[in-house]
Amino acid sequence: MLTKADITKIKSLGEKKSRLEHGLFTLEGHKIISEVKDSDFEIENIYTTQQDADNEHVSPKEMARISQLKTPTDCLAVVKIPSYKLNFDELNNSLILALDNVQDPGNLGTIIRIADWFGIKDILCSHLSADCYNPKVVQASMGAILRVRVHYTNLEEALSKITSPIYGTFLEGDNIYNHSLSANGVIVMGNEGRGISEVIEAKISSKLYIPPYPKNSPSSESLNVATATSIVCSEFRRRV
Amino acid sequence: MLTKADITKIKSLGEKKSRLEHGLFTLEGHKIISEVKDSDFEIENIYTTQQDADNEHVSPKEMARISQLKTPTDCLAVVKIPSYKLNFDELNNSLILALDNVQDPGNLGTIIRIADWFGIKDILCSHLSADCYNPKVVQASMGAILRVRVHYTNLEEALSKITSPIYGTFLEGDNIYNHSLSANGVIVMGNEGRGISEVIEAKISSKLYIPPYPKNSPSSESLNVATATSIVCSEFRRRV
Repeated sequence: MLTKADITKIKSLGEKKSRLEHGLFTLEGHKIISEVKDSDFEIENIYTTQQDADNEHVSPKEMARISQLKTPTDCLAVVKIPSYKLNFDELNNSLILALDNVQDPGNLGTIIRIADWFGIKDILCSHLSADCYNPKVVQASMGAILRVRVHYTNLEEALSKITSPIYGTFLEGDNIYNHSLSANGVIVMGNEGRGISEVIEAKISSKLYIPPYPKNSPSSESLNVATATSIVCSEFRRRV
Repeated sequence: MLTKADITKIKSLGEKKSRLEHGLFTLEGHKIISEVKDSDFEIENIYTTQQDADNEHVSPKEMARISQLKTPTDCLAVVKIPSYKLNFDELNNSLILALDNVQDPGNLGTIIRIADWFGIKDILCSHLSADCYNPKVVQASMGAILRVRVHYTNLEEALSKITSPIYGTFLEGDNIYNHSLSANGVIVMGNEGRGISEVIEAKISSKLYIPPYPKNSPSSESLNVATATSIVCSEFRRRV
């Protein structure tokens, strides 16, 4: 039986402040809950509206009160936020992503899903980036949040410790299709409106550009950051 | 001065039924409204909260009532839905997209923006696809809706008239990175959950696959449809 305090606490995990305070986040739906059971994540509790001796039973009304979804599913898990350590030896020998203030939760979730597809295990995020345990991010990531390590860090300091090439996309960058790309390195993606900030730009060793078609056509000014991430990751991975 | 009937009508253009009935849709924000003025679209009216002799003045309160946005901007245009004709001679000599029931408005808007970036002028949509004049689609397209022609049609019939190669992505398809791709053709993208339907699959001449990394890794099961579209379009365009 859920107490009023339980309901308030679980529902509050929709807010970043409360997630940080409790060190918890929520997952909803059968598929991701079966995935989290098979993962290293620590599950605090699973609530279900079904008859299921393993999990805590709640009424559909209670589920609606603890769920972040407009249309709740029949199960919700409260899970501990993992604490990952930054291992620079490992990071310097991998292809990783770094996000400089990507702020839209849908974009962040899509980028985590892209990272998962392309075997990118670590994403460095500036502190002002969207929170990866935001329910909208978790949902857009389609389970990839369980397989990709998202690290919140001072991005400028972290990139200072990187010895592999650091790539970023810029309007004045080199055509990515013809540019040599290393198997290991950091791909930096910038904020939706302002792109990559000056302090981070100073860390970039190689500026890339996804050319429109036809080249120099005066059409859209930019690609969405998740779209650009997918094209850049595809270019890196098709060559190895 | 807006009448109550005006307000009801403009607000109702958030709904597909009303857009079809009136043959009108709305655009919001300075940037896209300055773009629509330079386009072939016919503008019925522009409403603004600013002092501006060219446009109809409304109060911020009235703007909030006609706007589809949570935070309205200071201008809104009511624009006629264009009627495009399908020219198969032209379609057969271009790279185009065909969407088989892509239903999420954000995905459709992102796909229109990708098409615009990659110089794809025409998108064929099955009748069950999201409506491209839905305010969420218009917003996600970032103005590209003014430059890309979106045609709603019986997709099966339309593809029967196509003589150029018809490509689609399938789990059992050939690795796109190694596959020859023609400069002209149709790229079919499927529904978010069910992929490409059987009747449309029968029209596909070449099945492609975006391989994950490492190959055959048991990570994410799929890419988001807009993500996959961007990678496929990038592959077609980088080769020409």
